[in-house]
Amino acid sequence: MKLSTINKIGEFGLIDMIKKMVKLDASVVKGIGDDAAVLNFSRDKYLLLTSDMLIEDVHFKCTMQASNIGHKALACSVSDIAAMGGIPKNAVISLGLPTSLEISFVKDLYKGIANIAKKFKINIVGGDTNRAEKIIIDVTLLGEVEKKNLVLRSTAKTGDLIFITGSLEETLKTGKHLTFKPRLKESRFLVKNYRINSMIDISDGLAQDLGHILNESHKGAVIYQRAILKNKDTSLKEALYGGENYELLFTLSQSQARRLLRDKAKGKIKFPISEIGSITKSKNKLIFIDADNKEKTLKLRGFRHF
Amino acid sequence: MKLSTINKIGEFGLIDMIKKMVKLDASVVKGIGDDAAVLNFSRDKYLLLTSDMLIEDVHFKCTMQASNIGHKALACSVSDIAAMGGIPKNAVISLGLPTSLEISFVKDLYKGIANIAKKFKINIVGGDTNRAEKIIIDVTLLGEVEKKNLVLRSTAKTGDLIFITGSLEETLKTGKHLTFKPRLKESRFLVKNYRINSMIDISDGLAQDLGHILNESHKGAVIYQRAILKNKDTSLKEALYGGENYELLFTLSQSQARRLLRDKAKGKIKFPISEIGSITKSKNKLIFIDADNKEKTLKLRGFRHF
Repeated sequence: MKLSTINKIGEFGLIDMIKKMVKLDASVVKGIGDDAAVLNFSRDKYLLLTSDMLIEDVHFKCTMQASNIGHKALACSVSDIAAMGGIPKNAVISLGLPTSLEISFVKDLYKGIANIAKKFKINIVGGDTNRAEKIIIDVTLLGEVEKKNLVLRSTAKTGDLIFITGSLEETLKTGKHLTFKPRLKESRFLVKNYRINSMIDISDGLAQDLGHILNESHKGAVIYQRAILKNKDTSLKEALYGGENYELLFTLSQSQARRLLRDKAKGKIKFPISEIGSITKSKNKLIFIDADNKEKTLKLRGFRHF
Repeated sequence: MKLSTINKIGEFGLIDMIKKMVKLDASVVKGIGDDAAVLNFSRDKYLLLTSDMLIEDVHFKCTMQASNIGHKALACSVSDIAAMGGIPKNAVISLGLPTSLEISFVKDLYKGIANIAKKFKINIVGGDTNRAEKIIIDVTLLGEVEKKNLVLRSTAKTGDLIFITGSLEETLKTGKHLTFKPRLKESRFLVKNYRINSMIDISDGLAQDLGHILNESHKGAVIYQRAILKNKDTSLKEALYGGENYELLFTLSQSQARRLLRDKAKGKIKFPISEIGSITKSKNKLIFIDADNKEKTLKLRGFRHF
């Protein structure tokens, strides 16, 4: 008998399997399937809960700067909270560490963590430490969001315009995958000033993460090559499929978008944003218009975890 | 230059180092150093947050029953919430999985998780899945506790009597380390009916976990061999230093303890408890009175994580 293994069903097959096995009660507003879980909290706020695991030789090498690895470990989760429109508050960090690892490495790793914690006013309130063969860092971050500011992946509307913050890079080459600045300030500005219909952070690549919005919202999209901001050394393929840019990808109605673009023209928006396309009603279909105005259908793929 | 490594400073040296590197704001009631972090939540409740990482070949073998491994992964955290007097609510689970792992293993692992989640009414609301060489399961559990029912490690009082639930076993031999039932119902009964001064779950061994209470409370203790309930196949050494019994160790004033023992005599307490000694003012000193009434000082050690 041939047994099915994880690399056969992949990450999303695995997540689908898990989703079917768990039951949720009414206190859960959103479970598995967004950047963070959304939980009932108070009259006007929700709790947000997200976790990210980094593993040596999968997500980083131990020869990389330890403080950067620590930065990345917490910054990933800050980016998830930002993608929901929320504010990070408290984190617990579980570590797996080889017994022969130098203390100075752990100290530097924690310096990176403490530094970003300070910058975003996050309390490191607990965790777990264990012996392991490879370095493992699992961060769980608890945040909050005002009910009116919550943004999901699943609520893009047909006709919405699609925007991204910043520009896309080949992050492994530029180092952005370790040193990126999570777009928390940008997210808070956006949710406070505009009605954002859907949002995600670009962790697995533009095509795949836009694919998550389309899939969860049961929509399609058309995007334009000429509108995608990328560094000059970055290939189009890398811009579409490369992971770990941690920019925000969001959609809003045409009238809200017009207001956003007017504000941009007036210099009221202090960070780069670009409009890259629009949401269509063709479920899960991503159309790409290249520089010669030729149309093709893109695969909704990106970084493969397995 | 000789570099200092983790096995030199050990788990508690590592935790002390980390504690010094993080700063907490006023919303944190208790950070690193108890079974769970305690956070401000509402007028009458606190949030509790705890995480536990299990790693293949450190905490379990992949030849063990997958559903038991899943059970253990979540049950550890339920036990942590119980040790604070609280109720578990929502969990996120990060997995590291070899690509060649059989899907049926992951399914069974999740059956074990889903089973205990159902039993204790816990929502599995999210997580992360990653490729790894060894199986890694990191559970973060969010719970709640009424302010009046919160119990810390750090609040044992001189003269308190010390109790444990259940009996101690050589858990690796009996299998209890995988199949234990977290003492949540017992904890809730205790905090609702008595003023519990301090509590911890016995995960690293009686001597070490009592040591945590003594250390955090700046107290000492005397315990009696004849009072320690253990299975007949379990050595005294194993009862004192063996890990993963996940019983509750708690202290309460003599008057509260008398009431507890009267209730026990009347059959009002539906689970085994035994009084094993008392709290003294001799900071960090653990005195053991053996079966021949001979006194010796015990080391506050137990399971070594590094």
